[in-house]
Amino acid sequence: MSDPAPSGDEEGRPGIGRVEAFSDGVVAIIVTIMVLELHPPETVGWDKLWALWPVMLAYVLSYAYVAIYWVNHHRLFTHATHVTNGLIWANMVLLFTLSLVPFATAYLGEHHFHRDATLLYLATLLLPSLAYVRLQSIIRRTGKQGPAAEAYHRQMTRKGLFATLLYLAGIPLSFLSPWLGIACAALVALFWCMPKSSFDRLFD
Amino acid sequence: MSDPAPSGDEEGRPGIGRVEAFSDGVVAIIVTIMVLELHPPETVGWDKLWALWPVMLAYVLSYAYVAIYWVNHHRLFTHATHVTNGLIWANMVLLFTLSLVPFATAYLGEHHFHRDATLLYLATLLLPSLAYVRLQSIIRRTGKQGPAAEAYHRQMTRKGLFATLLYLAGIPLSFLSPWLGIACAALVALFWCMPKSSFDRLFD
Amino acid sequence: MSDPAPSGDEEGRPGIGRVEAFSDGVVAIIVTIMVLELHPPETVGWDKLWALWPVMLAYVLSYAYVAIYWVNHHRLFTHATHVTNGLIWANMVLLFTLSLVPFATAYLGEHHFHRDATLLYLATLLLPSLAYVRLQSIIRRTGKQGPAAEAYHRQMTRKGLFATLLYLAGIPLSFLSPWLGIACAALVALFWCMPKSSFDRLFD
Amino acid sequence: MSDPAPSGDEEGRPGIGRVEAFSDGVVAIIVTIMVLELHPPETVGWDKLWALWPVMLAYVLSYAYVAIYWVNHHRLFTHATHVTNGLIWANMVLLFTLSLVPFATAYLGEHHFHRDATLLYLATLLLPSLAYVRLQSIIRRTGKQGPAAEAYHRQMTRKGLFATLLYLAGIPLSFLSPWLGIACAALVALFWCMPKSSFDRLFD
Repeated sequence: MSDPAPSGDEEGRPGIGRVEAFSDGVVAIIVTIMVLELHPPETVGWDKLWALWPVMLAYVLSYAYVAIYWVNHHRLFTHATHVTNGLIWANMVLLFTLSLVPFATAYLGEHHFHRDATLLYLATLLLPSLAYVRLQSIIRRTGKQGPAAEAYHRQMTRKGLFATLLYLAGIPLSFLSPWLGIACAALVALFWCMPKSSFDRLFD
Repeated sequence: MSDPAPSGDEEGRPGIGRVEAFSDGVVAIIVTIMVLELHPPETVGWDKLWALWPVMLAYVLSYAYVAIYWVNHHRLFTHATHVTNGLIWANMVLLFTLSLVPFATAYLGEHHFHRDATLLYLATLLLPSLAYVRLQSIIRRTGKQGPAAEAYHRQMTRKGLFATLLYLAGIPLSFLSPWLGIACAALVALFWCMPKSSFDRLFD
Repeated sequence: MSDPAPSGDEEGRPGIGRVEAFSDGVVAIIVTIMVLELHPPETVGWDKLWALWPVMLAYVLSYAYVAIYWVNHHRLFTHATHVTNGLIWANMVLLFTLSLVPFATAYLGEHHFHRDATLLYLATLLLPSLAYVRLQSIIRRTGKQGPAAEAYHRQMTRKGLFATLLYLAGIPLSFLSPWLGIACAALVALFWCMPKSSFDRLFD
Repeated sequence: MSDPAPSGDEEGRPGIGRVEAFSDGVVAIIVTIMVLELHPPETVGWDKLWALWPVMLAYVLSYAYVAIYWVNHHRLFTHATHVTNGLIWANMVLLFTLSLVPFATAYLGEHHFHRDATLLYLATLLLPSLAYVRLQSIIRRTGKQGPAAEAYHRQMTRKGLFATLLYLAGIPLSFLSPWLGIACAALVALFWCMPKSSFDRLFD
């Protein structure tokens, strides 16, 4: 960094606040536009509503996924101390990958968990996890230091690795049945939502 | 909570601020995308515009409902002191249930307050009230303590219970006429919007 | 106000901050969803693009209008000192009336400034100005006091009155030609955007 | 500025915060609604998905562009010290020009990088750069002063000029092949995303 001018990179937490606010806005929109795929049926009738269950199920799963990213992002950014060019762009890439989730969700719901749609969905959800690894490694390097921060990053890295492996297992399983792939994705979502417990000690 | 690392749970009000900001974003989008259902008629004419009244009425009612949740959420969060995993997820569930309101509103408006659409609408509006009870009980337990906080939570719980009972009465009444169900929902909305007054003493 | 519990009404500027943030979110969405009406033509060709000019013109005018409300809201809220029930609901009503602007804009653009569409548009833009008067009177009564605040409110009330009269003139003029109505609305927008100058002294 | 009343213009950084928050909201929505153009194909099949590549490519390019504006805006506003009428309206014009990007992007993607669509796209992306020049010159004049601020503004002006020249070269090149025009736009995007390095010294 040979930037001679004070270009926001050195301003500390205030700069972080605006990156958080922008991320909150993007994630809030991503999470909410997915519900637009729930088109109300053109004729009344409980059977017509019931036929929406794949779209609804896809929405629930994706909502949980994006919510998990927000929660983890929220915690991760408490460890950031200043804004760097690398941090901003790693965050932009993460938001970009999350913005593809509504597309994959609509595809999954419209094609009723068809095998190809499930594979596309699993592949799309893999992208933010890669982007998140990059973002975390930047904050680990440039953010708060010390044993507590180190313990947090080590634990999150292990949890992330475990989640990704469980998740990757869903791809071959989808060839047996798309529902096995979806089950893996749902398990990963549950894994992240679970209240913190002695279970977390497994990842220390 | 045996979490060994400072993962944002202990950071106090700043963490709260970001949960509020994210909730504001989601609620702002929910409230605004409902207006997208007001499709401009393809031909000019006051009769064509007038035919939009059910969609408009459904929008007004849902706008009032979501606005009430925002106002109550705004007040409730002044009692929160720190972010816990339970708080974040109870809030995420509340936002999820609110995100279904635009769907139920579109269905209600498009099918002109048909009985089944009214029942779906009433059932959908019941979900956030259940999620709100859970969120409030978490903040009551983990947030600010003391007689004033206790009085606030006791009053809100009573008001919430009264509103829910009034609301539930709308479901059987919808079988007589959907308009009776809608009237109950409208009464509940009015009940929450009313300026605070000696009426509130009924709920102390 | 006989509310016995500290329910956010007495918390001062922090409560104001969240009302501002929510309003910013809603206005940002309103302003942006209007651009969704600019549907790209299905075939290439400059004539097809050129045919979009009424939609584009309606968008520019409405963008300016909503932006003016945001700017005035931004300034008005620097005079608010605490959140009251009346303030929150007057603000919610203002945001509701603004949320109808995209509908009236789409109607105006799609029907190429037809007389009826122009009348609906002018009538819709009148609603937020009424809601704003109410909001301002609440902040004038409950917010910052003193000669400077008084001068601000007096000047804004006069400017608002002048703008509304100019605006109202557009309604009968639309019967001569819709373009005269639109010209009045555009004049009002220009009037608010103008840099502050000695012209402002006319309204002291 | 002969404004006799304290109308928010003199309040310093807090007023800036709200302009930033509003801008964040608008940019977050712009960046996210572009993904709505990625309509999931109605039948399953990898070839149908593959046919979406022009829409996807247009989205990636526009996302990068809007993200760059956000990053530069974020840095520029660290130099602002107080809100003026000119600052607010220059910012509103910038946000307006950015709001046209989703339209031009949809047009580009739907017409598969047709020459005319590419020219419209390049012309649309030029508008925010003009608006940004105006905004920067206002902040340069009214914001933080001193050698560091001066160096920042001088460097950014040079980088902006270089980017615009590179960008303008794309317009005649599009007549040879639209891909040459797109390549220029992509080069400009890369130029802004690049990590800061000794390369920046060229623009001191």
